[in-house]
Amino acid sequence: MKKITIYPIGLVHSPYKQIKDMPIQGKFKPGVKAWIGLKREYSPGLKDLEGFSHAIIIYYFHKSEKTEIEGKPFLENNKHGIFAIRSPHRPNHIGLSVVKVERIEDNKLHFSEVDVLDGTPVLDIKPYVKQFDVRDNIISGWLDKHFQNTGIGVN
Amino acid sequence: MKKITIYPIGLVHSPYKQIKDMPIQGKFKPGVKAWIGLKREYSPGLKDLEGFSHAIIIYYFHKSEKTEIEGKPFLENNKHGIFAIRSPHRPNHIGLSVVKVERIEDNKLHFSEVDVLDGTPVLDIKPYVKQFDVRDNIISGWLDKHFQNTGIGVN
Repeated sequence: MKKITIYPIGLVHSPYKQIKDMPIQGKFKPGVKAWIGLKREYSPGLKDLEGFSHAIIIYYFHKSEKTEIEGKPFLENNKHGIFAIRSPHRPNHIGLSVVKVERIEDNKLHFSEVDVLDGTPVLDIKPYVKQFDVRDNIISGWLDKHFQNTGIGVN
Repeated sequence: MKKITIYPIGLVHSPYKQIKDMPIQGKFKPGVKAWIGLKREYSPGLKDLEGFSHAIIIYYFHKSEKTEIEGKPFLENNKHGIFAIRSPHRPNHIGLSVVKVERIEDNKLHFSEVDVLDGTPVLDIKPYVKQFDVRDNIISGWLDKHFQNTGIGVN
Protein backbone atom coordinates (compact mmCIF):
# COMPACT_ATOMS: atom_id res chain seq x y z
CA MET A 1 0.00 0.00 0.00
CA LYS A 2 1.92 2.94 -1.22
CA LYS A 3 1.84 6.58 -0.20
CA ILE A 4 -0.65 9.02 -1.70
CA THR A 5 0.07 12.69 -2.29
CA ILE A 6 -2.75 15.17 -1.98
CA TYR A 7 -2.93 18.96 -2.17
CA PRO A 8 -5.19 21.37 -0.28
CA ILE A 9 -7.92 22.80 -2.51
CA GLY A 10 -8.30 25.84 -0.24
CA LEU A 11 -8.25 27.10 3.34
CA VAL A 12 -10.85 27.62 6.06
CA HIS A 13 -11.29 31.15 7.40
CA SER A 14 -12.92 30.75 10.79
CA PRO A 15 -13.35 32.79 13.97
CA TYR A 16 -11.84 29.87 15.91
CA LYS A 17 -8.14 30.68 16.19
CA GLN A 18 -7.36 28.15 18.91
CA ILE A 19 -8.55 24.64 19.69
CA LYS A 20 -9.74 25.67 23.17
CA ASP A 21 -12.28 28.12 21.68
CA MET A 22 -14.11 25.53 19.58
CA PRO A 23 -17.40 23.81 20.26
CA ILE A 24 -17.30 20.02 20.21
CA GLN A 25 -19.29 20.14 16.98
CA GLY A 26 -20.36 23.17 14.97
CA LYS A 27 -24.03 22.21 15.07
CA PHE A 28 -24.10 23.22 18.73
CA LYS A 29 -23.15 26.87 18.02
CA PRO A 30 -25.21 27.53 14.93
CA GLY A 31 -24.71 31.32 14.73
CA VAL A 32 -20.98 31.20 13.99
CA LYS A 33 -19.96 31.91 10.38
CA ALA A 34 -16.90 30.89 8.41
CA TRP A 35 -15.82 30.47 4.80
CA ILE A 36 -13.60 28.39 2.61
CA GLY A 37 -11.46 30.23 0.07
CA LEU A 38 -10.75 27.80 -2.78
CA LYS A 39 -7.87 28.06 -5.19
CA ARG A 40 -9.18 30.16 -8.08
CA GLU A 41 -9.12 27.30 -10.58
CA TYR A 42 -11.66 25.39 -8.49
CA SER A 43 -14.34 28.12 -8.47
CA PRO A 44 -16.46 26.35 -11.15
CA GLY A 45 -16.46 23.27 -8.91
CA LEU A 46 -18.87 25.05 -6.55
CA LYS A 47 -21.58 25.37 -9.24
CA ASP A 48 -24.96 24.08 -7.92
CA LEU A 49 -23.69 23.41 -4.40
CA GLU A 50 -25.87 26.33 -3.31
CA GLY A 51 -28.91 24.13 -3.99
CA PHE A 52 -27.92 21.95 -1.04
CA SER A 53 -28.72 22.95 2.53
CA HIS A 54 -25.58 21.22 3.85
CA ALA A 55 -22.15 20.12 2.70
CA ILE A 56 -19.54 17.71 3.99
CA ILE A 57 -16.11 19.24 4.29
CA ILE A 58 -13.05 17.03 4.49
CA TYR A 59 -9.92 18.67 5.82
CA TYR A 60 -6.48 18.15 7.28
CA PHE A 61 -5.98 18.47 11.06
CA HIS A 62 -2.89 20.62 10.56
CA LYS A 63 -2.41 21.36 14.28
CA SER A 64 -2.19 17.73 15.30
CA GLU A 65 1.39 16.70 15.91
CA LYS A 66 0.89 13.12 17.06
CA THR A 67 -0.82 9.93 15.98
CA GLU A 68 -2.60 7.69 18.45
CA ILE A 69 -4.17 4.26 17.95
CA GLU A 70 -6.31 4.67 21.05
CA GLY A 71 -7.26 7.96 22.64
CA LYS A 72 -9.57 9.87 24.93
CA PRO A 73 -12.32 11.95 23.37
CA PHE A 74 -13.34 15.42 24.63
CA LEU A 75 -16.45 14.02 26.25
CA GLU A 76 -15.00 11.49 28.67
CA ASN A 77 -11.92 10.05 30.26
CA ASN A 78 -12.20 6.53 28.90
CA LYS A 79 -9.93 5.37 26.12
CA HIS A 80 -11.44 4.17 22.86
CA GLY A 81 -10.00 3.00 19.57
CA ILE A 82 -9.07 5.97 17.37
CA PHE A 83 -11.60 4.75 14.75
CA ALA A 84 -14.37 4.93 17.37
CA ILE A 85 -13.69 8.60 18.21
CA ARG A 86 -13.34 11.80 16.17
CA SER A 87 -9.96 12.88 17.60
CA PRO A 88 -7.55 14.77 15.28
CA HIS A 89 -4.65 12.57 16.40
CA ARG A 90 -5.54 9.79 13.98
CA PRO A 91 -3.62 8.12 11.19
CA ASN A 92 -3.66 10.52 8.23
CA HIS A 93 -5.15 13.36 10.35
CA ILE A 94 -8.23 13.63 8.17
CA GLY A 95 -11.21 15.53 9.57
CA LEU A 96 -14.83 15.67 8.48
CA SER A 97 -17.66 18.06 9.34
CA VAL A 98 -21.21 18.52 8.15
CA VAL A 99 -21.74 22.27 7.70
CA LYS A 100 -24.65 24.47 6.66
CA VAL A 101 -24.26 26.10 3.26
CA GLU A 102 -24.93 29.83 3.54
CA ARG A 103 -23.93 31.16 0.12
CA ILE A 104 -21.36 30.91 -2.64
CA GLU A 105 -19.49 33.89 -3.98
CA ASP A 106 -16.87 33.29 -6.67
CA ASN A 107 -14.29 30.96 -5.07
CA LYS A 108 -15.78 31.28 -1.59
CA LEU A 109 -18.12 28.91 0.22
CA HIS A 110 -19.69 30.69 3.17
CA PHE A 111 -20.99 28.32 5.82
CA SER A 112 -22.26 28.03 9.39
CA GLU A 113 -22.27 25.21 11.98
CA VAL A 114 -18.51 25.61 12.21
CA ASP A 115 -16.11 23.43 14.20
CA VAL A 116 -12.96 23.98 12.20
CA LEU A 117 -9.89 26.05 13.08
CA ASP A 118 -8.82 29.11 11.11
CA GLY A 119 -6.20 28.17 8.53
CA THR A 120 -7.27 24.53 8.19
CA PRO A 121 -6.36 23.09 4.76
CA VAL A 122 -9.41 21.76 2.91
CA LEU A 123 -9.08 18.50 0.99
CA ASP A 124 -12.58 18.08 -0.44
CA ILE A 125 -16.14 19.40 -0.36
CA LYS A 126 -19.09 17.10 -1.03
CA PRO A 127 -22.81 17.75 -1.16
CA TYR A 128 -24.61 16.34 1.91
CA VAL A 129 -27.25 14.09 0.43
CA LYS A 130 -30.22 13.00 2.52
CA GLN A 131 -30.69 9.86 0.44
CA PHE A 132 -27.05 8.74 0.86
CA ASP A 133 -25.86 10.13 4.17
CA VAL A 134 -28.77 9.80 6.59
CA ARG A 135 -29.70 6.53 8.27
CA ASP A 136 -32.57 5.40 10.46
CA ASN A 137 -32.08 3.60 13.75
CA ILE A 138 -28.62 4.96 14.45
CA ILE A 139 -26.85 3.80 17.57
CA SER A 140 -23.88 5.96 18.50
CA GLY A 141 -21.99 3.67 20.88
CA TRP A 142 -20.24 5.25 23.87
CA LEU A 143 -21.48 8.71 22.77
CA ASP A 144 -25.22 8.24 23.21
CA LYS A 145 -25.10 8.41 27.01
CA HIS A 146 -23.58 11.89 26.87
CA PHE A 147 -26.58 13.25 25.01
CA GLN A 148 -29.35 11.61 27.03
CA ASN A 149 -32.02 14.10 28.07
CA THR A 150 -30.39 16.93 26.09
CA GLY A 151 -32.81 16.71 23.19
CA ILE A 152 -29.80 16.58 20.84
CA GLY A 153 -29.90 13.80 18.31
CA VAL A 154 -33.63 13.17 18.70
CA ASN A 155 -34.48 13.12 15.01
CA MET B 1 -0.52 25.38 0.48
CA LYS B 2 1.88 22.54 0.41
CA LYS B 3 1.43 18.89 -0.43
CA ILE B 4 0.32 16.35 2.16
CA THR B 5 1.44 12.74 2.19
CA ILE B 6 -0.95 10.10 3.47
CA TYR B 7 -0.79 6.32 3.68
CA PRO B 8 -3.59 3.77 3.34
CA ILE B 9 -4.52 2.23 6.69
CA GLY B 10 -5.95 -0.85 4.96
CA LEU B 11 -7.84 -2.18 1.97
CA VAL B 12 -11.49 -2.87 1.16
CA HIS B 13 -12.44 -6.45 0.24
CA SER B 14 -15.69 -6.18 -1.65
CA PRO B 15 -17.73 -8.29 -4.08
CA TYR B 16 -17.71 -5.33 -6.48
CA LYS B 17 -14.78 -5.93 -8.80
CA GLN B 18 -15.78 -3.41 -11.44
CA ILE B 19 -17.38 0.03 -11.39
CA LYS B 20 -20.25 -1.11 -13.61
CA ASP B 21 -21.40 -3.67 -11.00
CA MET B 22 -21.87 -1.15 -8.21
CA PRO B 23 -25.05 0.42 -6.89
CA ILE B 24 -25.12 4.20 -6.86
CA GLN B 25 -24.98 4.02 -3.06
CA GLY B 26 -24.58 0.96 -0.85
CA LYS B 27 -27.71 1.74 1.13
CA PHE B 28 -29.77 0.67 -1.88
CA LYS B 29 -28.41 -2.91 -1.88
CA PRO B 30 -28.36 -3.63 1.83
CA GLY B 31 -27.63 -7.39 1.66
CA VAL B 32 -24.13 -7.06 0.19
CA LYS B 33 -21.25 -7.67 2.61
CA ALA B 34 -17.65 -6.49 2.54
CA TRP B 35 -14.76 -5.95 4.95
CA ILE B 36 -11.80 -3.72 5.55
CA GLY B 37 -8.51 -5.40 6.41
CA LEU B 38 -6.47 -2.91 8.41
CA LYS B 39 -2.72 -2.98 8.80
CA ARG B 40 -2.08 -5.09 11.90
CA GLU B 41 -0.77 -2.21 13.99
CA TYR B 42 -4.15 -0.46 13.70
CA SER B 43 -6.23 -3.32 15.16
CA PRO B 44 -6.57 -1.62 18.59
CA GLY B 45 -7.98 1.42 16.77
CA LEU B 46 -11.21 -0.51 16.14
CA LYS B 47 -11.94 -0.92 19.88
CA ASP B 48 -15.52 0.17 20.70
CA LEU B 49 -16.49 0.85 17.08
CA GLU B 50 -18.74 -2.19 17.35
CA GLY B 51 -21.00 -0.15 19.65
CA PHE B 52 -21.92 2.04 16.69
CA SER B 53 -24.53 0.95 14.15
CA HIS B 54 -22.78 2.81 11.33
CA ALA B 55 -19.34 4.10 10.38
CA ILE B 56 -18.04 6.62 7.88
CA ILE B 57 -15.29 5.26 5.70
CA ILE B 58 -12.97 7.62 3.84
CA TYR B 59 -11.06 6.11 0.98
CA TYR B 60 -9.05 6.80 -2.16
CA PHE B 61 -10.73 6.45 -5.57
CA HIS B 62 -7.80 4.46 -6.93
CA LYS B 63 -9.45 3.69 -10.28
CA SER B 64 -10.04 7.32 -11.20
CA GLU B 65 -7.47 8.52 -13.70
CA LYS B 66 -8.70 12.03 -14.30
CA THR B 67 -9.66 15.16 -12.40
CA GLU B 68 -12.63 17.27 -13.41
CA ILE B 69 -13.81 20.63 -12.07
CA GLU B 70 -17.30 20.05 -13.46
CA GLY B 71 -18.81 16.70 -14.28
CA LYS B 72 -21.90 14.63 -14.93
CA PRO B 73 -23.20 12.44 -12.10
CA PHE B 74 -24.56 8.92 -12.63
CA LEU B 75 -28.12 10.10 -12.22
CA GLU B 76 -28.41 12.67 -15.00
CA ASN B 77 -26.81 14.24 -18.03
CA ASN B 78 -26.46 17.76 -16.69
CA LYS B 79 -23.09 19.08 -15.63
CA HIS B 80 -22.58 20.25 -12.07
CA GLY B 81 -19.61 21.55 -10.13
CA ILE B 82 -17.46 18.67 -8.87
CA PHE B 83 -18.15 19.81 -5.27
CA ALA B 84 -21.90 19.44 -5.89
CA ILE B 85 -21.62 15.78 -7.02
CA ARG B 86 -20.03 12.64 -5.58
CA SER B 87 -17.98 11.71 -8.66
CA PRO B 88 -14.61 9.98 -8.13
CA HIS B 89 -12.94 12.32 -10.66
CA ARG B 90 -12.46 15.07 -8.11
CA PRO B 91 -9.39 16.90 -6.85
CA ASN B 92 -7.64 14.54 -4.39
CA HIS B 93 -9.93 11.60 -5.37
CA ILE B 94 -11.23 11.21 -1.84
CA GLY B 95 -14.39 9.13 -1.38
CA LEU B 96 -16.76 8.83 1.56
CA SER B 97 -19.45 6.28 2.40
CA VAL B 98 -21.70 5.65 5.36
CA VAL B 99 -21.69 1.89 5.98
CA LYS B 100 -23.40 -0.43 8.42
CA VAL B 101 -21.10 -1.98 11.02
CA GLU B 102 -21.63 -5.75 11.10
CA ARG B 103 -18.81 -6.97 13.35
CA ILE B 104 -15.16 -6.54 14.19
CA GLU B 105 -12.72 -9.41 14.22
CA ASP B 106 -9.05 -8.62 14.98
CA ASN B 107 -7.94 -6.21 12.25
CA LYS B 108 -11.11 -6.65 10.18
CA LEU B 109 -14.17 -4.43 10.05
CA HIS B 110 -17.04 -6.34 8.44
CA PHE B 111 -19.72 -4.06 7.03
CA SER B 112 -22.78 -3.90 4.79
CA GLU B 113 -24.39 -1.13 2.69
CA VAL B 114 -21.39 -1.34 0.39
CA ASP B 115 -20.63 0.92 -2.58
CA VAL B 116 -16.86 0.56 -2.70
CA LEU B 117 -14.71 -1.35 -5.18
CA ASP B 118 -12.58 -4.32 -4.17
CA GLY B 119 -9.00 -3.21 -3.51
CA THR B 120 -9.88 0.36 -2.56
CA PRO B 121 -7.28 1.90 -0.22
CA VAL B 122 -8.85 3.09 3.05
CA LEU B 123 -7.66 6.42 4.52
CA ASP B 124 -9.78 6.67 7.65
CA ILE B 125 -12.71 5.17 9.56
CA LYS B 126 -14.88 7.33 11.82
CA PRO B 127 -17.87 6.49 13.99
CA TYR B 128 -21.13 7.75 12.48
CA VAL B 129 -22.61 9.90 15.22
CA LYS B 130 -26.29 10.79 15.16
CA GLN B 131 -25.69 13.94 17.20
CA PHE B 132 -22.97 15.24 14.84
CA ASP B 133 -23.76 13.86 11.40
CA VAL B 134 -27.54 13.98 11.02
CA ARG B 135 -29.42 17.18 10.20
CA ASP B 136 -33.08 18.13 10.01
CA ASN B 137 -34.60 19.91 7.03
CA ILE B 138 -32.04 18.73 4.51
CA ILE B 139 -32.38 19.93 0.94
CA SER B 140 -30.35 17.90 -1.53
CA GLY B 141 -30.22 20.25 -4.52
CA TRP B 142 -30.36 18.72 -8.00
CA LEU B 143 -30.61 15.22 -6.46
CA ASP B 144 -33.97 15.48 -4.70
CA LYS B 145 -36.00 15.26 -7.92
CA HIS B 146 -34.48 11.86 -8.72
CA PHE B 147 -35.87 10.37 -5.52
CA GLN B 148 -39.35 11.85 -5.61
CA ASN B 149 -42.03 9.23 -5.03
CA THR B 150 -39.43 6.51 -4.33
CA GLY B 151 -39.82 6.66 -0.54
CA ILE B 152 -36.02 6.97 -0.31
CA GLY B 153 -34.81 9.78 1.91
CA VAL B 154 -38.14 10.20 3.68
CA ASN B 155 -36.82 10.23 7.24
